[in-house]
Amino acid sequence: MNKIKILNKLEIKNILNMNMALNAVESAYSQKNSLKGNVWPLVFYEYEHNVFDLDIRLGNLEDQKAYGLKLISYNENNVGKGLDKVNATSLIFDSNTGQPLALLNSSPITLYRTGAAAGIGAKYLARQDSKNLLVVGCGNIAVYSVVAILLTMPKIENIFISNPKDYESLTRRIDSIKQKINELLEECNVTLKANIECVNNLEKYTKVSDIIVTATPSEEAMIKFNWVKEGTHFSCMGACMEGKQEIDENIFSKAIVFADDEIQCLKQGETQTAYKKHIILKLNGEIGKIILNKKQGRESAQDITIFDSTGLFIQDLATSIEVLNHSNNVGKEVEL
Amino acid sequence: MNKIKILNKLEIKNILNMNMALNAVESAYSQKNSLKGNVWPLVFYEYEHNVFDLDIRLGNLEDQKAYGLKLISYNENNVGKGLDKVNATSLIFDSNTGQPLALLNSSPITLYRTGAAAGIGAKYLARQDSKNLLVVGCGNIAVYSVVAILLTMPKIENIFISNPKDYESLTRRIDSIKQKINELLEECNVTLKANIECVNNLEKYTKVSDIIVTATPSEEAMIKFNWVKEGTHFSCMGACMEGKQEIDENIFSKAIVFADDEIQCLKQGETQTAYKKHIILKLNGEIGKIILNKKQGRESAQDITIFDSTGLFIQDLATSIEVLNHSNNVGKEVEL
Repeated sequence: MNKIKILNKLEIKNILNMNMALNAVESAYSQKNSLKGNVWPLVFYEYEHNVFDLDIRLGNLEDQKAYGLKLISYNENNVGKGLDKVNATSLIFDSNTGQPLALLNSSPITLYRTGAAAGIGAKYLARQDSKNLLVVGCGNIAVYSVVAILLTMPKIENIFISNPKDYESLTRRIDSIKQKINELLEECNVTLKANIECVNNLEKYTKVSDIIVTATPSEEAMIKFNWVKEGTHFSCMGACMEGKQEIDENIFSKAIVFADDEIQCLKQGETQTAYKKHIILKLNGEIGKIILNKKQGRESAQDITIFDSTGLFIQDLATSIEVLNHSNNVGKEVEL
Repeated sequence: MNKIKILNKLEIKNILNMNMALNAVESAYSQKNSLKGNVWPLVFYEYEHNVFDLDIRLGNLEDQKAYGLKLISYNENNVGKGLDKVNATSLIFDSNTGQPLALLNSSPITLYRTGAAAGIGAKYLARQDSKNLLVVGCGNIAVYSVVAILLTMPKIENIFISNPKDYESLTRRIDSIKQKINELLEECNVTLKANIECVNNLEKYTKVSDIIVTATPSEEAMIKFNWVKEGTHFSCMGACMEGKQEIDENIFSKAIVFADDEIQCLKQGETQTAYKKHIILKLNGEIGKIILNKKQGRESAQDITIFDSTGLFIQDLATSIEVLNHSNNVGKEVEL
């Protein structure tokens, strides 16, 4: 019989750090653009609209010698019952043999790999001298994105955190947000040096920011076209389903736009509105092409650049293998 | 944290019997036709043509309050390395909460649920007074199908087992085949009474058989049109991919044909050749409709009937839940 490794949420949290996720996500993106990584068609099923749904994402990576899937469910009905609202589970297989390798609680992996995407977007598309980072949204994805960008863009001096729909809740939570950012950086032996502040005037801070991360569930543009200065980079993390939007679609008319996956971004990413309105007819390409030096990203310090991240299972897969490779003596091995 | 149950191959073999699988598969078929069971789009990926491939099948069942998936890989390269050629793994979720319920080695479940399909096909489409059963093929699916049909068609007196491509290997294996049939019946507290014999003249035994099961990997028809007597029922188990065929496509011109899944059978089931050649333009329906009394199957003792089984994940899902419901104190519970 074959043995399978099981890693739970706590074990994965203890192993994983953002530098591991950054390496993994960069590897996944580049393999996608060198025919070594495949994203297979996803399944989405809705039990109750906006209350209980699930999606299953699948794919493989040649360098990691693995394939697998992640199933995420989102169930509002779990609230108040002592159950997680979001459940993420990954099953990973050895692509040499076809045997199951590991079952993982994928909730922490999802946070790290999503934050890492924002960091990789900035690394390849922002100006190297970027100093000011504006984050729209103050949930987990915002926090993990800040950490990833601090690691890939070490010249960041100021972090402006905003929460357009509810500034008050941001001010109540800012201390725990700072603490979480500190903790995540410490996992990588990095000390937070940048200044962090809550801001409530999006126009003012858009105008002075070099990098803007959007990480909200918004369905309408929060960042206006005429606020955006030359040279700005956007890592758009929030829009991953049809109907979502965070930045003015007209920004795309002046921007260099790269995707994690072109088809997915045109359909359900931040790009969807600009594409539907024919403001842009196509993307500049996928970020993996820049990593592989097959395409140039930013061409000048004046360019506005956008990285549209919708999320790919191969990010989870590469991160999962990174976790497994550091899991000696951790987790349970069970005969299957 | 949530606990997930892990059941390995041996534990599942010890729990499962064919009567449980028959109940489960009948439940799955009927739910598919009462909007309580869904089959989601499958993923098929080939690492090396005819050497290493995998498919992932998914779906949900309302009565079992569950959804999930099964991943099967087939890898010829594993032969001689002490590894299973086929690996089947299922991950099952609670459709009330979205939480993972169980991880199962799905190899035994696949055998039982596939055999059970042949039994359900005979139960709803063969003549109740059927006495002679011809089985084409002598692998696991043939054996499990015989057992299921003996349980659903208790008047069977003679079982003719054939293996057109290699009669000699059948004669060498017949004792172990009989023993396996006996063991599987004993799990249901049933004693084998029917006579079992190896046969090598397909024409002769087709002409005297009431029920014919095909369970080979054949890509050409083995049963000729003019051999088939009135009243015969076929449970076609082998054809589940494009290019496969076991019985003469002209038999379909005179037959009442039911499917496990209409679209899948027209595309990749035994029906595919008759459909491509316009011998039939559509099926009579899905077997779930007969179970639910929404359609009549056989109309007279003279009808030739065909059940085309391509295999659905909801058969595995229902059988998995049946296994889980009988797994008190068996298996491992692991925190996820």
